[in-house]
Amino acid sequence: MTDNDSKAAASKMWGGRFAGGPAAIMRRINASIDFDRRLYAQDIRGSQAHCRMLAAQKMIGADDAAAILDGLERVLAEIEAGTFPFRAELEDIHMNVEARLAELIGEPAGRLHTARSRNDQVATDFRLWVRDAIDGMEAGLKDLVLALLDRAEEHAATVMPGFTHLQAAQPVTFGHHLMAYVEMIGRDRGRLVDARRRLNESPLGSAALAGTSFPIDREATARALGFDRPMRNSLDGVSDRDFALEFLSASAICAVHLSRLAEELVIWTSAQFRFVSLSDAFTTGSSIMPQKRNPDAAELIRAKTGRVIGDLSSLLIVMKGLPLAYSKDMQDDKEPVFEAADTMELAISAMAGMIRDLTVNEAVMAAAAGAGFTTATDIADWCVRALGMPFRRAHHVAGSLVKLAEDKGVGLEDLSLEDMQAVEPGITEEARAVLTVASSVASRTSQGGTAPVRVRAAIAEARARLAEEGR
Amino acid sequence: MTDNDSKAAASKMWGGRFAGGPAAIMRRINASIDFDRRLYAQDIRGSQAHCRMLAAQKMIGADDAAAILDGLERVLAEIEAGTFPFRAELEDIHMNVEARLAELIGEPAGRLHTARSRNDQVATDFRLWVRDAIDGMEAGLKDLVLALLDRAEEHAATVMPGFTHLQAAQPVTFGHHLMAYVEMIGRDRGRLVDARRRLNESPLGSAALAGTSFPIDREATARALGFDRPMRNSLDGVSDRDFALEFLSASAICAVHLSRLAEELVIWTSAQFRFVSLSDAFTTGSSIMPQKRNPDAAELIRAKTGRVIGDLSSLLIVMKGLPLAYSKDMQDDKEPVFEAADTMELAISAMAGMIRDLTVNEAVMAAAAGAGFTTATDIADWCVRALGMPFRRAHHVAGSLVKLAEDKGVGLEDLSLEDMQAVEPGITEEARAVLTVASSVASRTSQGGTAPVRVRAAIAEARARLAEEGR
Amino acid sequence: MTDNDSKAAASKMWGGRFAGGPAAIMRRINASIDFDRRLYAQDIRGSQAHCRMLAAQKMIGADDAAAILDGLERVLAEIEAGTFPFRAELEDIHMNVEARLAELIGEPAGRLHTARSRNDQVATDFRLWVRDAIDGMEAGLKDLVLALLDRAEEHAATVMPGFTHLQAAQPVTFGHHLMAYVEMIGRDRGRLVDARRRLNESPLGSAALAGTSFPIDREATARALGFDRPMRNSLDGVSDRDFALEFLSASAICAVHLSRLAEELVIWTSAQFRFVSLSDAFTTGSSIMPQKRNPDAAELIRAKTGRVIGDLSSLLIVMKGLPLAYSKDMQDDKEPVFEAADTMELAISAMAGMIRDLTVNEAVMAAAAGAGFTTATDIADWCVRALGMPFRRAHHVAGSLVKLAEDKGVGLEDLSLEDMQAVEPGITEEARAVLTVASSVASRTSQGGTAPVRVRAAIAEARARLAEEGR
Amino acid sequence: MTDNDSKAAASKMWGGRFAGGPAAIMRRINASIDFDRRLYAQDIRGSQAHCRMLAAQKMIGADDAAAILDGLERVLAEIEAGTFPFRAELEDIHMNVEARLAELIGEPAGRLHTARSRNDQVATDFRLWVRDAIDGMEAGLKDLVLALLDRAEEHAATVMPGFTHLQAAQPVTFGHHLMAYVEMIGRDRGRLVDARRRLNESPLGSAALAGTSFPIDREATARALGFDRPMRNSLDGVSDRDFALEFLSASAICAVHLSRLAEELVIWTSAQFRFVSLSDAFTTGSSIMPQKRNPDAAELIRAKTGRVIGDLSSLLIVMKGLPLAYSKDMQDDKEPVFEAADTMELAISAMAGMIRDLTVNEAVMAAAAGAGFTTATDIADWCVRALGMPFRRAHHVAGSLVKLAEDKGVGLEDLSLEDMQAVEPGITEEARAVLTVASSVASRTSQGGTAPVRVRAAIAEARARLAEEGR
Repeated sequence: MTDNDSKAAASKMWGGRFAGGPAAIMRRINASIDFDRRLYAQDIRGSQAHCRMLAAQKMIGADDAAAILDGLERVLAEIEAGTFPFRAELEDIHMNVEARLAELIGEPAGRLHTARSRNDQVATDFRLWVRDAIDGMEAGLKDLVLALLDRAEEHAATVMPGFTHLQAAQPVTFGHHLMAYVEMIGRDRGRLVDARRRLNESPLGSAALAGTSFPIDREATARALGFDRPMRNSLDGVSDRDFALEFLSASAICAVHLSRLAEELVIWTSAQFRFVSLSDAFTTGSSIMPQKRNPDAAELIRAKTGRVIGDLSSLLIVMKGLPLAYSKDMQDDKEPVFEAADTMELAISAMAGMIRDLTVNEAVMAAAAGAGFTTATDIADWCVRALGMPFRRAHHVAGSLVKLAEDKGVGLEDLSLEDMQAVEPGITEEARAVLTVASSVASRTSQGGTAPVRVRAAIAEARARLAEEGR
Repeated sequence: MTDNDSKAAASKMWGGRFAGGPAAIMRRINASIDFDRRLYAQDIRGSQAHCRMLAAQKMIGADDAAAILDGLERVLAEIEAGTFPFRAELEDIHMNVEARLAELIGEPAGRLHTARSRNDQVATDFRLWVRDAIDGMEAGLKDLVLALLDRAEEHAATVMPGFTHLQAAQPVTFGHHLMAYVEMIGRDRGRLVDARRRLNESPLGSAALAGTSFPIDREATARALGFDRPMRNSLDGVSDRDFALEFLSASAICAVHLSRLAEELVIWTSAQFRFVSLSDAFTTGSSIMPQKRNPDAAELIRAKTGRVIGDLSSLLIVMKGLPLAYSKDMQDDKEPVFEAADTMELAISAMAGMIRDLTVNEAVMAAAAGAGFTTATDIADWCVRALGMPFRRAHHVAGSLVKLAEDKGVGLEDLSLEDMQAVEPGITEEARAVLTVASSVASRTSQGGTAPVRVRAAIAEARARLAEEGR
Repeated sequence: MTDNDSKAAASKMWGGRFAGGPAAIMRRINASIDFDRRLYAQDIRGSQAHCRMLAAQKMIGADDAAAILDGLERVLAEIEAGTFPFRAELEDIHMNVEARLAELIGEPAGRLHTARSRNDQVATDFRLWVRDAIDGMEAGLKDLVLALLDRAEEHAATVMPGFTHLQAAQPVTFGHHLMAYVEMIGRDRGRLVDARRRLNESPLGSAALAGTSFPIDREATARALGFDRPMRNSLDGVSDRDFALEFLSASAICAVHLSRLAEELVIWTSAQFRFVSLSDAFTTGSSIMPQKRNPDAAELIRAKTGRVIGDLSSLLIVMKGLPLAYSKDMQDDKEPVFEAADTMELAISAMAGMIRDLTVNEAVMAAAAGAGFTTATDIADWCVRALGMPFRRAHHVAGSLVKLAEDKGVGLEDLSLEDMQAVEPGITEEARAVLTVASSVASRTSQGGTAPVRVRAAIAEARARLAEEGR
Repeated sequence: MTDNDSKAAASKMWGGRFAGGPAAIMRRINASIDFDRRLYAQDIRGSQAHCRMLAAQKMIGADDAAAILDGLERVLAEIEAGTFPFRAELEDIHMNVEARLAELIGEPAGRLHTARSRNDQVATDFRLWVRDAIDGMEAGLKDLVLALLDRAEEHAATVMPGFTHLQAAQPVTFGHHLMAYVEMIGRDRGRLVDARRRLNESPLGSAALAGTSFPIDREATARALGFDRPMRNSLDGVSDRDFALEFLSASAICAVHLSRLAEELVIWTSAQFRFVSLSDAFTTGSSIMPQKRNPDAAELIRAKTGRVIGDLSSLLIVMKGLPLAYSKDMQDDKEPVFEAADTMELAISAMAGMIRDLTVNEAVMAAAAGAGFTTATDIADWCVRALGMPFRRAHHVAGSLVKLAEDKGVGLEDLSLEDMQAVEPGITEEARAVLTVASSVASRTSQGGTAPVRVRAAIAEARARLAEEGR
């Protein structure tokens, strides 16, 4: 297509008044077809619903409607077959689809845009796309939860150090640790559900911004597109991008969760930790150091957090200070959302894969769980329970025992009863029983605690909630 | 307090093992009391609930419990009276309260921390604080909605140009415009409600991270503090900051909404627009230009968006890649939240004030609504409706009419019937009736449209929903 | 290519040890060839320099070197002709180029990677790319400065209101206003120059991270690639991405500058301001409102700021907390930089185009410059100068005169001498001369002031500095 | 002060026209005195320079000037003594100082603001403050470099694993590792130097935005305040905040560097790594786990990155899309800068303290350096060097040797010559010498490599550069 053709096409598209045409740079900055073509299915779905409503309301004839619906199917088929002739000079997916429709069916194509504007059309398309993205992400997260539950069940009693400040604090079980992520992902799913519910109102029928004088039936198009209802205000209908912002917020928080687990995987697979191993399927080698087994997928998931937070910031900044109703700035809403959706899809799948793939080095974890005086709290708690000591004093006693053991270069459980009584005369043999990792973990039976019995109950509960969802 | 005293205090606080004490720079970077003192009420509330539970479960005696509860009330009174001796060397609000309690009541104070850790304590305090902040923000937004509804009702039929690209597009009513913000704020409130529901689980009883072997009753403390239930996983209980992130996300989106209205106020109060005026109460003068009446409050609200988005980014970044359970990084969760909450409170109140304060220059708005061929769509729609013309051709006809009017230097409504028929022979006198602003606005009766009858219905509906809430 | 082939290729690439191959999801998350192919020219340039150095240092034979150099030219030609067979299973541009080289020239290809690692290779390629991007952006900004200077010269004496708070404050000239942007862009260029200088050190020869035992000549490769010197530390050589962060920072600040001018264009082209008009080349029409002339390019430039700030945040977040030396997270450095570079290129070109395109509505600007008592400061200053009045009192006098004029519904210059003397008896006829816009502007001859004579001098100075650069 | 007094004060301050006064919420959102009081020293310095210039140019009398200068000294003394009566109703530091000056010296105070506006005054004050902050940060970074150099020198030959992907890759020395940070901090200092140079132009004399008609001497005030020259454009003078953005950018990149070292410290002090230990001075204990030694300072430094990136985003967002010249939004420039400056000061000092404080566990590092086949590259390189093998084949040989050693459960250096020759017949006894950590490290003598001799040279060079600076 020559430059003149393209100017002509643009001129035609913008109506009869424009004498000239946009400069080349303008065409480049203005065209969105390179990215908004991803909305094609939603655009066609929206046009079909709109067309059926126009016909039902007698705003277009039955023959015209049939021609349009048939033409739209052909356009869809062309796009999916990869034969559709996308044209940059037609700017966006909406004009590309409509122009092709006109080529295919002639005049009736010009009736499709009755009582509609690109403003409500793009708002509708993009909402539908984000809704699909939410559904996809939701499904991915559910799969990740299932992966976590399976491994948690397998390791409900596998001990490992519970860390604070990356220092071993108290023993926990690996199953309990994984179940913390089940909770996080559960909240992520909840946020998506809420975002979907709030999103699920139809902007179609807002027209340019003021509504229309045509006798349209917004309830009908809303219903046809799976929306719960029409949006209540036409200005809001075309100027609102909350649904995209909320999707990006939920994604960013979810990405932070994934980054925490990813960081743990990177640390745990280090030679120094060796808590878990990843198979060849989720590691790579090095072009120069043949011995390396790098946790690339975990690192990439961690990095992706930066992208998603950047996407969220980006759209918040774009929307800041925009007067109503539509400003062209809002064209920059799609790329951050597409990027975040793609990124999350990859990160969630890769994480589920790694969780299923990883081998737990139980012996290494167990040894680490017992090192570093991790049962010091247990002896303090014993002093409170058995000796009626105020916690703060018991805490001091435990500290002195740790210092003694450290000075002797032994573990707490290796101190003799005499040693212990020198610190606190009330200590008895019974007290020494609380010093093993197994008894420590088993004793933490408070609700939500790490005792294997509690962990298994939590897993069962989580499975029950998932099963409930399906109904 | 001397440096040695402070070292001693710190040493005491961290248990018996520490021989030295933190360096001065360490104390400065480590201490959070300068900001976390804002949690005092929540900290004391949490300790009271914990104490009552300990007594009910027979983990501490009734006398000790009474002494502790009484002491906590005295601490609360001291803080509220401004006589409480805050000490930086005690690091944070939790240790400040407990140390003061020990001074006031002696040994029983040392029993309060039984079956609790600073990790679940701070998680509980901060959740309670954020919940209060959500409630406060919700109330502020409700007030803003009421302000918007009142002004919308007053101006349900006041015409103004509806803008896209800051170019007049079609006439709307000022009431309709304000109602778009009612929708936005409504979604903001919905996000807060969802965030509050998701937040409303109690971390208390998670202890350091693994739960506890004491026979605590987490349901009881949860209930006492107004939580719906205990959190399900103790590791998650101490490592989760989703509630803060979700509050910040909701605030950032809300701030974006406020910034859009603020930008409009800045533009509308310019000498060139003069759509509205603000009184002295919401403007300032200039130290050198006595004639100025600057919309400072609107500008500051617009600017605050940057702060709140920065706060959100900040906490997302802090949480990225943190291994479970608690890392000291998480101490940096409070300042962004405090700043965002304060900022939102100010911005929302100032916006409600301005909405109530502003004077609408109806004549200026009306004149602007009619300028710029804003009824061109109406004539296009008329051609479709009356002449059965395809929309795309009707659009072209309207464009030609605009060009003609522009060339003649007149408005569309000033074209003679002959002029119009030269462009499109089918045009009749009837068509000219659609060219007035009043008829244009009145005709847009589609659901959510700008016709005054629709705007009034929307206001009534919104009031009904608000009334429903109260029940 | 079948899945088995691709596994085999991957396995081969990662060395002999890997039995399995990456899972499909792993391949997707891991492959960077979709975006890092943009580094092809830099990759080949770097390999050529490396190869020549290896030969000069006798680490490879002259024949092998010749074969490699010839092969690399053929690879380059294939890529530029669009015939190069990019393969996702080879992950990245480096392996794609090397694998193709091996197909083309056989065994010698395997010698190219001697004393090199992908770690220093990608660091070198990306630095070269960013350096090219800086040079391109610098050239674009210089062109924008020239556009601004031309229009500033044309309008050195064209009066307009100088705004604070979007309220007219004092008259300035349009040329003076544009020259403020010349200053901003000048600083942007300075930041790019500094970033380029700091970037311009060669990481090549850092090898994997520790340097190498081969007798390489890093000065030679640095020189060949236009770097000022080799980087001083091999760990830093492979782990540093400051150059990308600094490029993004400079871009973000520059984007903010462009957004300010873009916002002004959006406001100035509104029907209410009408200070300037844009031609068809930089505006678009509406699909439903034929009369619209939307400043799309300006809006898009404004929006792009969000993208670029998002890109900067994104990479800062990716790099946060990464241990040395290389982590896979750093693969996510390229997309934000590519996006920002593309975005800036578009935004700068479009802005230069709009500046050259815009029509100044001098009469509208002049009328606005005189409205709103914008010369109130001039009368205050006159009182100080002529009557020796303290500024604060003079300010009060001016305020009273404005109030009087406002009450009478006239301009300051329309007040009679009697009126003025009623406020301040010392006022004489001479004082009234300072009340015109022309005299106000002409009087501001302080250095950097808006007097046309000053503006013209500033333009001449700026042109002289630009001319100096060329030398 | 009563509400009426405050309204009266505000009214007075804004000139004679304002009948009412700002609402309470307006006062709260508008007042900046709570944070901008930190500019007091800069404000007074600026006023002194301005006053001396006014006198020199005969714009105020010598007596008035003397009174003003004396009064300003008294104000300064009051503020530094903590006796200054800050008043919120006077909004900001500028009005507080001037109002107090008026109380102290009467009428001459009213002459100080001649030929000046709050717009250029605050721009001047804030520039001076940021310049001081840059100087302070620069000094802090220099101290950190000295700390790094001392420890690097001590450990120029201390071996440790060099990591990629947190997997041991090749041995390096701890000194070499620290020197990577010397490079990073060196670039940070370079960015600050550049930012300072670009900042160092005086906005004073820009007046409200247009310059002034008074015969001011901007060169004189610039010189008196240590600026290199006056800014060239008065509109830019009052609307530019690049200096703050550039300071924040440089801080954010520096914070990222600190976060990387902080992350390493957190990982290295874990029980699993134990590469280094921190003393009590930079760790804290736990209220419930007496054995803990938490690297709080390192964690807080890591977290602070989030704050500083948030501050940068925040101001970029505030400045986005602001029309010239001054908008009230710009009042929100100070808090992010203050917060970032405070944060950086703390983080840099704490990092220098930890570097000086840390104990290196050489034996642990050495053992880790030798584990994990980290000399596999050395054998590959030997094959290239000694056998003339193409690198890619040598890489494959090394991979096979690693696999063999892994299968046998031994280190590479434990393979017998026969074992090795079974993989590659050309391997000789000589080859085995390259397999020790010591020889590996010593062999990497390429420029910037990790050989101790190179590391020592790099330290000497760095010290020489520092010494050069002082001259």
